[in-house]
Amino acid sequence: MHFFSDNVTPIAPAVMAAIAAADMSDHGYDADRWSARLDAAFTDLFETPVSALWVATGTAANCIALTTLCPPYGGILCHEESHIMTDEAGAPGFFTHGASLMAMPGDGAKLTPDAITARLKAIRPDVHQVPARAISITNATEYGLVYTPDEVAALGDIARTHGLGFHMDGARFANAVAHLGCAPADVTWRAGIDALSFGCVKNGGMVGEALLFFGDQAPARAAEAKRWRKRSGHLFSKGRYLAAQILAMIEGDLWLANARSANAAAQALADGAAGRLMQAVQANELFVRLTAADAASLRAQGFDFYDWGEGAARLVTNWSQDAASVAPLAAALRALPHG
Amino acid sequence: MHFFSDNVTPIAPAVMAAIAAADMSDHGYDADRWSARLDAAFTDLFETPVSALWVATGTAANCIALTTLCPPYGGILCHEESHIMTDEAGAPGFFTHGASLMAMPGDGAKLTPDAITARLKAIRPDVHQVPARAISITNATEYGLVYTPDEVAALGDIARTHGLGFHMDGARFANAVAHLGCAPADVTWRAGIDALSFGCVKNGGMVGEALLFFGDQAPARAAEAKRWRKRSGHLFSKGRYLAAQILAMIEGDLWLANARSANAAAQALADGAAGRLMQAVQANELFVRLTAADAASLRAQGFDFYDWGEGAARLVTNWSQDAASVAPLAAALRALPHG
Amino acid sequence: MHFFSDNVTPIAPAVMAAIAAADMSDHGYDADRWSARLDAAFTDLFETPVSALWVATGTAANCIALTTLCPPYGGILCHEESHIMTDEAGAPGFFTHGASLMAMPGDGAKLTPDAITARLKAIRPDVHQVPARAISITNATEYGLVYTPDEVAALGDIARTHGLGFHMDGARFANAVAHLGCAPADVTWRAGIDALSFGCVKNGGMVGEALLFFGDQAPARAAEAKRWRKRSGHLFSKGRYLAAQILAMIEGDLWLANARSANAAAQALADGAAGRLMQAVQANELFVRLTAADAASLRAQGFDFYDWGEGAARLVTNWSQDAASVAPLAAALRALPHG
Amino acid sequence: MHFFSDNVTPIAPAVMAAIAAADMSDHGYDADRWSARLDAAFTDLFETPVSALWVATGTAANCIALTTLCPPYGGILCHEESHIMTDEAGAPGFFTHGASLMAMPGDGAKLTPDAITARLKAIRPDVHQVPARAISITNATEYGLVYTPDEVAALGDIARTHGLGFHMDGARFANAVAHLGCAPADVTWRAGIDALSFGCVKNGGMVGEALLFFGDQAPARAAEAKRWRKRSGHLFSKGRYLAAQILAMIEGDLWLANARSANAAAQALADGAAGRLMQAVQANELFVRLTAADAASLRAQGFDFYDWGEGAARLVTNWSQDAASVAPLAAALRALPHG
Repeated sequence: MHFFSDNVTPIAPAVMAAIAAADMSDHGYDADRWSARLDAAFTDLFETPVSALWVATGTAANCIALTTLCPPYGGILCHEESHIMTDEAGAPGFFTHGASLMAMPGDGAKLTPDAITARLKAIRPDVHQVPARAISITNATEYGLVYTPDEVAALGDIARTHGLGFHMDGARFANAVAHLGCAPADVTWRAGIDALSFGCVKNGGMVGEALLFFGDQAPARAAEAKRWRKRSGHLFSKGRYLAAQILAMIEGDLWLANARSANAAAQALADGAAGRLMQAVQANELFVRLTAADAASLRAQGFDFYDWGEGAARLVTNWSQDAASVAPLAAALRALPHG
Repeated sequence: MHFFSDNVTPIAPAVMAAIAAADMSDHGYDADRWSARLDAAFTDLFETPVSALWVATGTAANCIALTTLCPPYGGILCHEESHIMTDEAGAPGFFTHGASLMAMPGDGAKLTPDAITARLKAIRPDVHQVPARAISITNATEYGLVYTPDEVAALGDIARTHGLGFHMDGARFANAVAHLGCAPADVTWRAGIDALSFGCVKNGGMVGEALLFFGDQAPARAAEAKRWRKRSGHLFSKGRYLAAQILAMIEGDLWLANARSANAAAQALADGAAGRLMQAVQANELFVRLTAADAASLRAQGFDFYDWGEGAARLVTNWSQDAASVAPLAAALRALPHG
Repeated sequence: MHFFSDNVTPIAPAVMAAIAAADMSDHGYDADRWSARLDAAFTDLFETPVSALWVATGTAANCIALTTLCPPYGGILCHEESHIMTDEAGAPGFFTHGASLMAMPGDGAKLTPDAITARLKAIRPDVHQVPARAISITNATEYGLVYTPDEVAALGDIARTHGLGFHMDGARFANAVAHLGCAPADVTWRAGIDALSFGCVKNGGMVGEALLFFGDQAPARAAEAKRWRKRSGHLFSKGRYLAAQILAMIEGDLWLANARSANAAAQALADGAAGRLMQAVQANELFVRLTAADAASLRAQGFDFYDWGEGAARLVTNWSQDAASVAPLAAALRALPHG
Repeated sequence: MHFFSDNVTPIAPAVMAAIAAADMSDHGYDADRWSARLDAAFTDLFETPVSALWVATGTAANCIALTTLCPPYGGILCHEESHIMTDEAGAPGFFTHGASLMAMPGDGAKLTPDAITARLKAIRPDVHQVPARAISITNATEYGLVYTPDEVAALGDIARTHGLGFHMDGARFANAVAHLGCAPADVTWRAGIDALSFGCVKNGGMVGEALLFFGDQAPARAAEAKRWRKRSGHLFSKGRYLAAQILAMIEGDLWLANARSANAAAQALADGAAGRLMQAVQANELFVRLTAADAASLRAQGFDFYDWGEGAARLVTNWSQDAASVAPLAAALRALPHG
């Protein structure tokens, strides 16, 4: 059993069924009836008018969002360990035509109001310096922590005050909401979020993520995003297959059910790894102190995962697991000798 | 029955089966065993070492190819009605960071050696003008015509002489090869092609096209293309589903069988439309003179298609059709009153 | 005596004096007192509030203007022989991040309302095609013709109707106005121009052109242009020397006096070349039919110039000449054997 | 007397004379005889073949250099307080089409081999991360410190080992060499530098800096740089005026004489500010601890300068000063009450 990443999971059966059911259409690109339903489906889910579009990947969702929020001469405040900063090969620079990522530290890959405020204050308002134009946060974060609605709103206040766009990378948004138990609206537009990358692939999809825009500017931004989507080669001619997957996720509660299952698996592992946790376990990722001997022992028992530097490992659970199915690893963790 | 485009067809059963069979992997992105097989499978098909990668769409395949062949300050010789020129929303400018499309006329959307030679001669070799650095052709063309190996080779000679990269947009490459009856090699690398966008989606795939590099520089170009793929948000985390589709196409002869079927359907329609054809029918597209009354009559009989300016229509057949299945439209065309 | 181009002329004495007089300042970039005077000086000249900034070259002026008028996914309607199309090495693609130049034919390098209207009509309003977002014209044109206020206004009407930005490349704006005898306002903002590249270097400056914005959006566009100016490496630390040159040109009537002198020289040559002119002579450029023998004869007499294809030549006069000083060439032209 | 920056100084008389002497040419752009002499003049100065070109500004020199050394998908290792990082408005992102600036800390704005090595080690060699492709250092640094030949060579070794381009921002290169007393070659190409931004404007020029390439790839990189120079609007039509300024600087020893004068002025101030210095004074910048009262006192005596955060100030001397001319400020500093 492996815990490398939730991004190599199988496709959820309902998603696969939706793909099969979308197999005939007279209309290409996003003119099909599945794509046409996206706005309404997300509007229901988020209790506010939403402009939604499918894109190929989370990187594309993040970067197209940022392109609508930040001009080439602007900067994007983000965490120094955020996915856009460390794992997208400079894609934000490509899509935004060279906007600057303004990286900041913060525990658990979370940005704080104080850090952002200090950074904004340090930027001279002349043309020699890059002006901040957007904030991007990840929820759940790259360390599996979850921003609460209040925490997001505190950043949203800064964004509004300073005229900054506010983007949330929600590759694991479902896991965040499953942890919070709040309405999706509470942790997004009600807290000031303008654009959300709504992840599906890690949560049981095959290909395709949703990019959502909220607020008065949503239609204009979505219209521009559609230009960027085509321009970046992401306008699939058979887009219905992407739309159908997303609808299968969100028209029922599959997205939440899947995330709850992954989160429960993570909690089961967290119980097994008590005393070894480097971060609170709130979503579906664990960062665990493991000696080389510990890691070797677990691997010998058939569990695999990525090392996380020296003396530590990252374990990621996914929608196809639950507390029961990961019980063997939980037991194995518990059985490791105490450090 | 509609003949709008081959880009809204259903998924070929063997492709759908391949997707289902790829539903478990320990490895994300292109580290899975399907993606790992692409180079070898295309090497077999093309009888030369090939570096292959999957990308989301034909636009992405074309543009990533061009990015490896042309610097931002260079120009790409292409037809004024080529897909990259007219239907990719400026994506070549996006991917190449502003390289110039140097558009030229030519019958049936085909470039000729004379036209290219004249254009090259007109460019001053100083820094004030954009130097040509690549040629891009489409085979089969946007008008359903097919470049022969000799025709490609004549352009390939120019490319070699002038140090130009040579790209083929093969959105309907299968239809071209099915028409020619030659080896895929004959009309590509043996004729000087450096990079080929090998179309799958129009030919029965769901999502994903292949981008192929030939020749000594293939590994270096493919390595660079992989940077661009990630950088443009096209590195799917579950890339195995794209690789599996492509393999299902080419490890047997599905790609050719499907194209032959579509081509046969087009020939059946061409017979029905004798006297009305605006272009030779070689692949799976027909451009047909139709009065408004003709068109209305056909639509009243349940056939639909796009108008092509005044007094004409475009009919596109696809892999899921054959001569028999389109016989009703062939008959209806034949039954139209003579103009 | 040579007639290659007005871009290699010496510096007008008043301009050189202005440089020398600007040799001390406490303030760098554009915070000096000369730069601070630009807006007011151009506001006087154009009888409307103008936001002005100096830039290094005409290419920079044109491209920064276009960047403020056209998004990366848009297109710029221009003449196929315009400077931005043929002689700026793709700089518009660089500055605009890949916007498309939409080139059109037209006599004497002039755009016509009919040509533009037809082109706009041919663009499908879907995301697959590049939407036109700006028009750029050159006045005087690359063939030395001058758009009248009415001609500009006819294009301005189209721009306003279709929501297009409207730019004028005025590398030889002074020559155009000297020919027209109108107010500068008449042929610019009153006719719908949003941004003007106001040429100085060809007219007696050393380095530095002015970029002017008109209308309600002028301050916002100029603010953005200042970002682009810095971002493209054009914010000189000793910008006062550029501002001083421009002010020397326009605070008196030097710009017009110089242009009148160059135009008069061109008229003198036109008289000498009667029967050989390929274009009307309105500004300071002549396109003259000359056999190889004619050209050789003139060169043997000490006159030099560029050939213009086969059997023709381009003659450019400049501010440092007048009818008297070019009389020898006028006589030599007159003395050529009749063709 | 002000000490804001050396970038607002007057023009050195010999430079002004050179401008006046360049006032007639038959050839535009860089086809004049002054521009033609640049390669040879710098080849003499650096004792190795040099490919040289003039550009408008230091930002342009830095960014065009980086564009030839780093692809859009690469990264540039630099100091977090380097000019390219903090004061060029994101121009490196613009010119390189989105390459990443990889900022690092270091005393006095100097990079160390250990910091670079650690950073390189932390980059995973997969396509998800941006690969480092270049190092850029500033000499003298933004804090007025000078890298010795050995220090540069230590970084050059890393660059060579890892296949990284190596750029030096020499806005104050003359001040660095004046301090070191070494050959210009010792601290540049002999230490592994591939491209040098050779500053002139701060050292007595009006407009125009030199961009120099060293080594086997110099001609190819310079040829590409000339494309970028035109493409970014920096190819002045009267480039002779820039070339003449640069030649006036370097064909004699004006560049060194001017720098020595500025450095001597700085040493005189350093003596006056003994006990208050925050950095060693090696070139022509001083960072001095000053209370608000100290600063007010100096300003009341007619000296002006920029504050440097709380309780500190930056003083910059320039070529038009020397120890004698700044003696009043040195005395005023000495006379301040002890802190």
